[in-house]
Amino acid sequence: MINLYPGPSKLNPSIATFLSHLPDVVSMNHRSDLFMELYQSVKDKFFHKFQVPSDYTLAFVSSATECWEILAKTYPTEHFSHISNGAFGNKWHQVNINKGIKTELINFDINSLPEVKTYQKGIVCLTHCETSNGTYLPKETLDNLNKQNPESLLAMDATASLGGIHINFNNIDITFASVQKCLGLPAGLGLLILSPRAIEKAKNLNQNSSYNTINNIVNNANKFQTTHTPNILNIYVLNNLLNVLENTLEAEQNLRQRFSEIQSKYDLKLLAENQEVQSPTVLAIKSDEPNELINTCYQEGIVIGKGYGKWKSNSIRIANFPAHTMDELDMALKIISRY
Amino acid sequence: MINLYPGPSKLNPSIATFLSHLPDVVSMNHRSDLFMELYQSVKDKFFHKFQVPSDYTLAFVSSATECWEILAKTYPTEHFSHISNGAFGNKWHQVNINKGIKTELINFDINSLPEVKTYQKGIVCLTHCETSNGTYLPKETLDNLNKQNPESLLAMDATASLGGIHINFNNIDITFASVQKCLGLPAGLGLLILSPRAIEKAKNLNQNSSYNTINNIVNNANKFQTTHTPNILNIYVLNNLLNVLENTLEAEQNLRQRFSEIQSKYDLKLLAENQEVQSPTVLAIKSDEPNELINTCYQEGIVIGKGYGKWKSNSIRIANFPAHTMDELDMALKIISRY
Repeated sequence: MINLYPGPSKLNPSIATFLSHLPDVVSMNHRSDLFMELYQSVKDKFFHKFQVPSDYTLAFVSSATECWEILAKTYPTEHFSHISNGAFGNKWHQVNINKGIKTELINFDINSLPEVKTYQKGIVCLTHCETSNGTYLPKETLDNLNKQNPESLLAMDATASLGGIHINFNNIDITFASVQKCLGLPAGLGLLILSPRAIEKAKNLNQNSSYNTINNIVNNANKFQTTHTPNILNIYVLNNLLNVLENTLEAEQNLRQRFSEIQSKYDLKLLAENQEVQSPTVLAIKSDEPNELINTCYQEGIVIGKGYGKWKSNSIRIANFPAHTMDELDMALKIISRY
Repeated sequence: MINLYPGPSKLNPSIATFLSHLPDVVSMNHRSDLFMELYQSVKDKFFHKFQVPSDYTLAFVSSATECWEILAKTYPTEHFSHISNGAFGNKWHQVNINKGIKTELINFDINSLPEVKTYQKGIVCLTHCETSNGTYLPKETLDNLNKQNPESLLAMDATASLGGIHINFNNIDITFASVQKCLGLPAGLGLLILSPRAIEKAKNLNQNSSYNTINNIVNNANKFQTTHTPNILNIYVLNNLLNVLENTLEAEQNLRQRFSEIQSKYDLKLLAENQEVQSPTVLAIKSDEPNELINTCYQEGIVIGKGYGKWKSNSIRIANFPAHTMDELDMALKIISRY
């Protein structure tokens, strides 16, 4: 089965080889030196390959969904501005609403970029790639939002981009993602990358009532430990994967090239028509008969995604992640372009 | 390296074979039929093998630590009575203290059983096997506590017992455990088993402000779905493992037999001298020179555990989990009994 679903998706093909031999560290106590060495190794390789500033902190959590909660618990007295054009950005806002946090939802059109201005001081929440509609925030927009909001923390959900679109971590204080999309790992591990400013603000607010507030997470991360027994198997796989993954500049270039090739080969109607906002990682394609199309693909051994949120009945979605190949995409797109 | 650590410990030897081939489901979307079938399969096998009543609910979470938080978020207005004789039971109490929940800590001696009486109405919190000192709560104590507290929910941390000591789920409303101990799985998955009464009480309190309150968890579990992207790889491994695991009555009998054999072969001074409370799954052994002993074992290729909490400087701990063999334990115990 070819998996082009834009959620948990095709695994990086190297993973089976890493798993054929399970070394001691996989069964090891997460307080052991062996685990702490593994943690440090992942951090070093990740920071090098993804160009993360050396004074940032990498933490292992369980999912990106958990990160929405972590931020609400860590900064409960801050104002959260949610800049969103789709279902996942809106969901994050709803998490804060449910917790009674001061929050504002700033919606923008899927064919536009969000307004670059100074938002209310606090946490400015961004979704790098909005998986529900296949749009993303280009580098310049992120850079400018950062410049215009020097007194706020920028927090970004990078679930459908980390490992596929290069991130300038200098401009983002809080980045989080799951590993089952552009990194091609099995689901069940979240990564949280924090700037010194994000950590400083957490210290000042001093929220420690949950094991997974940023204060508690960072106190452990500083010792290469975790607040809970983490997904060691996935951390071990990630450590190996970081030896073979391309850096994100190369990965992004390859995805963009394939995305262009797809657009020139197939006459696809993407939900967002403005090329500037089309994410190279997730293609949300207009379809009048999405269910029939999904079933036809499935019968041909290809899993594609339904539409999501308000685009559920008029679109389908496919992933263009680094683990995928042009041949796999071609198989799906030949069917899709017939509809 | 032989891993006798009573935390994440030796993996079940079958696991490498399950991982040598990664089927479609491992990379599959957690909203897909394939994942839901996997969830149902694990539930059916688990309930059959562990004799869980059919009207109970099985949920996948990220760790037992998370479960402490889940209960606090789900039942914040209830009174929590923590019956504890060690570091992990006390930690659970501290989690509720930090959250400002009405709570009482009822400590008992490590050579005694807790008092069987009617505790204040609310949630009665128990630690099945207290990993810090190698004691456990025998079946009769649990049955009697249940009888004496008909108006409360009994909640039990079964982290160092699930899969190694048989649990009468009829008498426990909320059971939770990680999978890296007696089940012999890699770390990074928590199991939460709920009675209809626990779910009913959660419904009445109607706490929905976090994705992982029991209400939200159960609404998903009823559809064989999860509130977040779960550790699908571990769930897949668990599904395979349940085909080969002994049932818990057999597993407990085997561990007890090995525990007796150990005690007759070696002159061990356990922290708890009262045989009635000694857990067959974790041996906390008195030692005057724990660090030297741990180092000697390590040089011989054997990982054993330090003492924990107030027994840190006068004990060591070893696991007697189903994945271990008598030969592995013998290697460690020959060294330990020389000290």
